[in-house]
Amino acid sequence: MTHKQYLLPAVMVIATTASFSLQAKEPIDPIRPVQEINLAQVELGKKLYFDPRLSKSGFISCNSCHNLSMGGTDNLKTSIGHNWQRGPINAPTVLNSSLNLAQFWDGRAADLKAQAGGPIANPGEMAATHTLAIDVLESIPQYVTEFKQVFAKDKITIDEVTQAIAEFEKTLVTPNARFDRWLLGDNDAITAKEKKGYELFKSSGCIACHNGEAIGGNSFQKMGVVEAYQANSPAEGLSAVTGKDADRFKFKVPTLRNVEMTYPYFHDGEAETLTEAVELMGKLQLGRKFNAEENAQIVAFLKTLTGDQPSFQMPILPPSTDATPQPKPFD
Amino acid sequence: MTHKQYLLPAVMVIATTASFSLQAKEPIDPIRPVQEINLAQVELGKKLYFDPRLSKSGFISCNSCHNLSMGGTDNLKTSIGHNWQRGPINAPTVLNSSLNLAQFWDGRAADLKAQAGGPIANPGEMAATHTLAIDVLESIPQYVTEFKQVFAKDKITIDEVTQAIAEFEKTLVTPNARFDRWLLGDNDAITAKEKKGYELFKSSGCIACHNGEAIGGNSFQKMGVVEAYQANSPAEGLSAVTGKDADRFKFKVPTLRNVEMTYPYFHDGEAETLTEAVELMGKLQLGRKFNAEENAQIVAFLKTLTGDQPSFQMPILPPSTDATPQPKPFD
Repeated sequence: MTHKQYLLPAVMVIATTASFSLQAKEPIDPIRPVQEINLAQVELGKKLYFDPRLSKSGFISCNSCHNLSMGGTDNLKTSIGHNWQRGPINAPTVLNSSLNLAQFWDGRAADLKAQAGGPIANPGEMAATHTLAIDVLESIPQYVTEFKQVFAKDKITIDEVTQAIAEFEKTLVTPNARFDRWLLGDNDAITAKEKKGYELFKSSGCIACHNGEAIGGNSFQKMGVVEAYQANSPAEGLSAVTGKDADRFKFKVPTLRNVEMTYPYFHDGEAETLTEAVELMGKLQLGRKFNAEENAQIVAFLKTLTGDQPSFQMPILPPSTDATPQPKPFD
Repeated sequence: MTHKQYLLPAVMVIATTASFSLQAKEPIDPIRPVQEINLAQVELGKKLYFDPRLSKSGFISCNSCHNLSMGGTDNLKTSIGHNWQRGPINAPTVLNSSLNLAQFWDGRAADLKAQAGGPIANPGEMAATHTLAIDVLESIPQYVTEFKQVFAKDKITIDEVTQAIAEFEKTLVTPNARFDRWLLGDNDAITAKEKKGYELFKSSGCIACHNGEAIGGNSFQKMGVVEAYQANSPAEGLSAVTGKDADRFKFKVPTLRNVEMTYPYFHDGEAETLTEAVELMGKLQLGRKFNAEENAQIVAFLKTLTGDQPSFQMPILPPSTDATPQPKPFD
């Protein structure tokens, strides 16, 4: 709850009014716009994020499954990987992922940098190797020069690649949601129905896990607290990382930021709509059956969490050269 | 050869100098920046171009195979379609495609609008149907509203969808290549080596087919004039459209604009590098063996044809609703 130190002066003035004082006590914090960032790394990382040559096929980039036109997801139940393999889990949104306590549903990567190397080398996703990815980048003079400019090192390694991608991803926060404007003192930014939904979200207990700046992303919780979840997915969650049986079916609580755009829901993508997700969460996690009106109120509140989407020029990628390893989509 | 009427006043002044007068006689015309365009259709078409929900899987958009970060192609020998099917032909660049006399390698679509509906419904590409695509769009209120604003019609049909995509594609011209700056009177815009390459390109006969504003795209020619082309690809070219045996292996001459970015080359993508493409074209079409120096000169000239790449904000797509037909990637 340290967001106050980042408030702009204009907002500080609003903060002295009664309405702001009230909302400042809320268990949800507004998304902070990006403050300090390495812009050179961001620009390089943006290219890498969109570059399918980091995959074996030359067809799949980070943006294929974490599509920045679509809420930072692929909007599929589970993702499509190399050779059209069916992924084991729902692609979590990259938006606001810098706010997560760890990355992946099971938290197996400590941060964005540790995460970024995973899909490149995962045989079911981009199916390259880090060596191949580096060989591709080293064969492209414009990349070689840009890496030298940005990192002041002679050689490109996966360390600089993942660092640049992670830095770009840190820019993918989505401030200025209607709910945040309400938190910051604009009482008219949400409707009475949406506010009722928020009150119900708090009073019924959703807020226990979905709180803070990302409204989630800051704890692991068991899927199926009150009632066991009947999963079709083999994903076991945190226990795959810790080896502890007590961590079975514990998953990172997903952010609810931009949740209107990040369908379908849950780690297995089994809930197609927000209505269904709210109903199931009430039942499994809280032992509560929301009636239709209550469900609609919560869904209305959730739709106030859509923030400003990333806005940038589509990057132009430097062309391959005669020395660039050929993509192998059909091997 | 009507580009003079589009020249800006500043350029008209340059045109009175001796150096411009000379270059104005060239068989290649500079790319004209976009003049008249329906901007509302462009903005809608840009969203549709990037929207994978026009495919059955929800994973493949126009931009998947005509990637605007990569010269408007996928840089693959042949494309990847639904369920990772291997396409029969190399994806031609969408850049400057409005200048083509017809669309597709075999010219089976008269214009961009006629082309745009093809891949959506092709079972080997996006694998949707026009009905499904319309159902998806009609289920998304933001699209419904935008179509109404842009076309002033009650219903969305494939006609408006392809019209908007085509209008966006008309913006994808790439003016301001170094070669064009040279054509427009900047004598220092290309090097002596590049100019030698251009002279050779003309004197050896390449210019016979690769001429005009797009340096190609304005005729069908047989692949293998002097010497038969040993093709692995089953593509038959224009004869598939006309039914005439004389049109077998006639393909639309590809544009050489941005050719540095549109590798690999030929309708079957068999030439991986420009060096290889120049060598084979000389041999098959002109009966001429370029030596290493000549080949390098022509390649140097070809690299002066890279123009300003499309520059726009990555579009944000309106989210699906509970009524939107679900993507079916694995059916």
